[in-house]
Amino acid sequence: MTMTTGCVRLSRGGSSRSIIGLPQSLSRNAGSVIFRRSGVVPSPTANLHHYHRLPSTSRSMTNSTVHRALNAKNINPNILKAQYAVRGEIAVRSEEYRKALQAGAGHRLPFHSVISANIGNPQQLDQKPITFFRQVLSIMEYPALIEHEEIFPEDVRERARVLLEDVGSVGAYSQSQGAYGIRKSVANFIKERDGFEANPDDIFLTGGASAGVHTLLNTICASRNTGVLIPIPQYPLYTATLALLDATAVSYHLNEEQKWSTNVELIETARQNAADNGTDVRCICVINPGNPTGSSLSVEDIKGVIRIAAKNHLVIMADEVYQTNVYDGVEFHSFKKVLRTLQREEPGRYDHVELVSLHSTSKGIVGECGHRGGYFELVNFDPEVKAQIYKLVSITLCPPVIGQCLVELMVNPPKEGEPSWELYNKERNHIFNGLESRAKALYQAFKDMTGVSCQNPDGAMYLFPSITIPEKAQAEARSLGKQPDEFYCLKMLDATGICVVPGSGFGQVEGTWHFRTTFLPPGTEWVDRLKKFHEGFMKEYSD
Amino acid sequence: MTMTTGCVRLSRGGSSRSIIGLPQSLSRNAGSVIFRRSGVVPSPTANLHHYHRLPSTSRSMTNSTVHRALNAKNINPNILKAQYAVRGEIAVRSEEYRKALQAGAGHRLPFHSVISANIGNPQQLDQKPITFFRQVLSIMEYPALIEHEEIFPEDVRERARVLLEDVGSVGAYSQSQGAYGIRKSVANFIKERDGFEANPDDIFLTGGASAGVHTLLNTICASRNTGVLIPIPQYPLYTATLALLDATAVSYHLNEEQKWSTNVELIETARQNAADNGTDVRCICVINPGNPTGSSLSVEDIKGVIRIAAKNHLVIMADEVYQTNVYDGVEFHSFKKVLRTLQREEPGRYDHVELVSLHSTSKGIVGECGHRGGYFELVNFDPEVKAQIYKLVSITLCPPVIGQCLVELMVNPPKEGEPSWELYNKERNHIFNGLESRAKALYQAFKDMTGVSCQNPDGAMYLFPSITIPEKAQAEARSLGKQPDEFYCLKMLDATGICVVPGSGFGQVEGTWHFRTTFLPPGTEWVDRLKKFHEGFMKEYSD
Repeated sequence: MTMTTGCVRLSRGGSSRSIIGLPQSLSRNAGSVIFRRSGVVPSPTANLHHYHRLPSTSRSMTNSTVHRALNAKNINPNILKAQYAVRGEIAVRSEEYRKALQAGAGHRLPFHSVISANIGNPQQLDQKPITFFRQVLSIMEYPALIEHEEIFPEDVRERARVLLEDVGSVGAYSQSQGAYGIRKSVANFIKERDGFEANPDDIFLTGGASAGVHTLLNTICASRNTGVLIPIPQYPLYTATLALLDATAVSYHLNEEQKWSTNVELIETARQNAADNGTDVRCICVINPGNPTGSSLSVEDIKGVIRIAAKNHLVIMADEVYQTNVYDGVEFHSFKKVLRTLQREEPGRYDHVELVSLHSTSKGIVGECGHRGGYFELVNFDPEVKAQIYKLVSITLCPPVIGQCLVELMVNPPKEGEPSWELYNKERNHIFNGLESRAKALYQAFKDMTGVSCQNPDGAMYLFPSITIPEKAQAEARSLGKQPDEFYCLKMLDATGICVVPGSGFGQVEGTWHFRTTFLPPGTEWVDRLKKFHEGFMKEYSD
Repeated sequence: MTMTTGCVRLSRGGSSRSIIGLPQSLSRNAGSVIFRRSGVVPSPTANLHHYHRLPSTSRSMTNSTVHRALNAKNINPNILKAQYAVRGEIAVRSEEYRKALQAGAGHRLPFHSVISANIGNPQQLDQKPITFFRQVLSIMEYPALIEHEEIFPEDVRERARVLLEDVGSVGAYSQSQGAYGIRKSVANFIKERDGFEANPDDIFLTGGASAGVHTLLNTICASRNTGVLIPIPQYPLYTATLALLDATAVSYHLNEEQKWSTNVELIETARQNAADNGTDVRCICVINPGNPTGSSLSVEDIKGVIRIAAKNHLVIMADEVYQTNVYDGVEFHSFKKVLRTLQREEPGRYDHVELVSLHSTSKGIVGECGHRGGYFELVNFDPEVKAQIYKLVSITLCPPVIGQCLVELMVNPPKEGEPSWELYNKERNHIFNGLESRAKALYQAFKDMTGVSCQNPDGAMYLFPSITIPEKAQAEARSLGKQPDEFYCLKMLDATGICVVPGSGFGQVEGTWHFRTTFLPPGTEWVDRLKKFHEGFMKEYSD
């Protein structure tokens, strides 16, 4: 039993009954979950089955001594149902390892750093903010800075002036739909991108795209019987939100073999089967470019989705947050542009198709996840439905105003000839080229690995390789109550410090196994760690 | 028919068929609701019943021509049910007036400015941000500024350094529960305030208190049968959220005559009646200091609520966002402090009482509504329930990070002797004294008005006077399909430009009428306008 098998033993023998690798003082502070050793039998997978979840506050009081109003059996059952693997057990464990390393308690760990490849969080890793954006935002926070010509270029100060005029103070509530001037900028951006008009009244600024998805699905879902078509694999925000709303997710599979593209037959079959079972299917979600797949849809694929929506009266929810993350010469096509084109090409046949497109400041070259900025555009929606959406968002008052300002900066960046252009362009290209080259390098690494296949990435921030998990490993996973890909990812984390998300968190064709990794972490050293782990894993379980 | 009646005629005679006072181009941009003239009979109330809602996008397409998936009859019925008067029709109309005035089209309006007294949005009005807070936030946005000793005092730069260390970039997602260092500061603040320990693991940072309320009610409400005790009058966030969750709001009335205090008999009766009807009452919400009432609860009142909660196994949800808005020597008592005191005084009898306390950066002397910062503290919660709350908040990733930083600054402001102390203290006192003196002036004005009674304000940002509405006015209101207090507030807006919220938006004892006004708008000229309107209204309808 050596480290080359890819498995990890944080302790030797049966002597260690403490929380291994995690000083108690740290684990108490770490959140709601710690891992406690409950057995002493040495095993190659000690760290997997000898630790179980124990809530950190249980030290002060246990359920048996008090009769509280709330317990895990009587709270909202929809919350119990909801699953969100991106920040699940593996992510929590990776944070424990990070804390242990920071506290100097990492000498028993077989790695020297934790690599967070589980979540698209660029600025946690290598990516630097765009200077122009942050300069404007700093003046928005402290307007007295606007006088400092020696610090801020003229276009930064001018933009801050315009935004201050529009929002007043970033400390004041804005209109619930978002500041009007910013929505006008978004409409201009959409018009320039698509060549079709956009109306600021149809734009709703949001606290990140996630808040927009919640608002929209909340509006669409009228009962448990409402069905929403969801791609498989999907970003689990969709199924989690549907679970919270107690509505029905209707899965349609993407074509892995054809770069994870949509397939009209698979969609139509899924829809028909659900309808035959009495489900009121009224919406189709599409993530383009794809999360977790990294794919980018062709105009023909998009037209196919729109035709199905038109025929079956489905709202199209287009998650287009990765619209600027397209690589290798691939072009992004917005659903709005394709819909408007179809409306022009075949008059009268698509005027009833409701489309909502979501965008965000968290992705692209902006990467400002922590600012929670975003918007959605409603296309062809019933005005009364729009008024209800307005009422819904007004209950939470308004999205963060500084995040709204960032939306303005994203859709209206410096132009050639302006003082900030050169630096902006340099930073943008640096970020973009870095993403593109890391995507390629990681893809190449997966191509070289035994038992791994991966589609060539052309969008987003992720790769979603398919892994062949040996039968012996699958059996061991099941004996531990884990999915085989979850088992694989836990072992990867324990051996390498690399945190990825199992495919079962996104959905996959039964019997296939995947994981999602971002290509955001810098350098290639971690890719070598991953390769080495994979070889060891395959070797150990292929006998 | 002259202006002294308090009613408004924006047009003369029957000649004007256009949208009066609202240029069409403006009203198109203003949101989803405009007011269109649909009749020509001149009347003192022309502006009330000659305009009806017309969705602004109806110009492009009507329902009759297309078959969309969504309409106002088939969307989520809970959204249709939800009401949120604070940003309702009157607020929308006031924005139209503001736009008309800005566009120079206000010459037909009988006022020269719109006074937004409908919403606690200090920085939209007179209140300036605290310099220390904004200086630190500007460095968080653009860390290169940290070098500028000539701009920023040493304690500003030091605080920014500590926060940057904690959160990394404000553009990165934080932990879903909020950055750990900031939660530690919140725990210290609570400990200093109450004299009892607080644990950072029990603190969840939120995007304003509204987001926290949504998270908590979502967790607590398991079905339509779940009952939550809500004070009447209440801030309508509570009933709106319960409507969205399809749970049951169980009203308990506050004692208007005794400064809107809680009354244990009224609470117990409301709870018992609901329980007798089969409702599973499991939570009591208390807003202290009160919104819309401006009241502040005594220790005895709080103990009374805790005893009811202990006896009946109710979670206490304490909305304490106005905890620093207490005037005239009144003291704020936190539920946490009173609960811990009871636990010490009567050992074993209160250990099972679950309490969650909410706070926000939007109110107090901070007034940073647009930043969407806040937190809640869970006390005595089941660890498994806490883990489910963690999962729920993880689905929307994290609260805005710059808003989290503002929470840190709120709970840990400059201390005496530090470089920023003097300015901070001066600004804080200026804001606080301004709020206190305006509260008193407005209270005095209401005391002087015929047919108005008002409780002496000792907290929050609001007054909630009771108004005697003459029978003739009530009849006219009903003939227009309006509540009498809604009619009164619409007429006030049309006559004076002052926007307040009718009591019916908060709930009130049947047959009584109120309105909520903030005391945030500066000066006293608007108070004179209000007085003059009220006299005219009473005179017109008392005949």
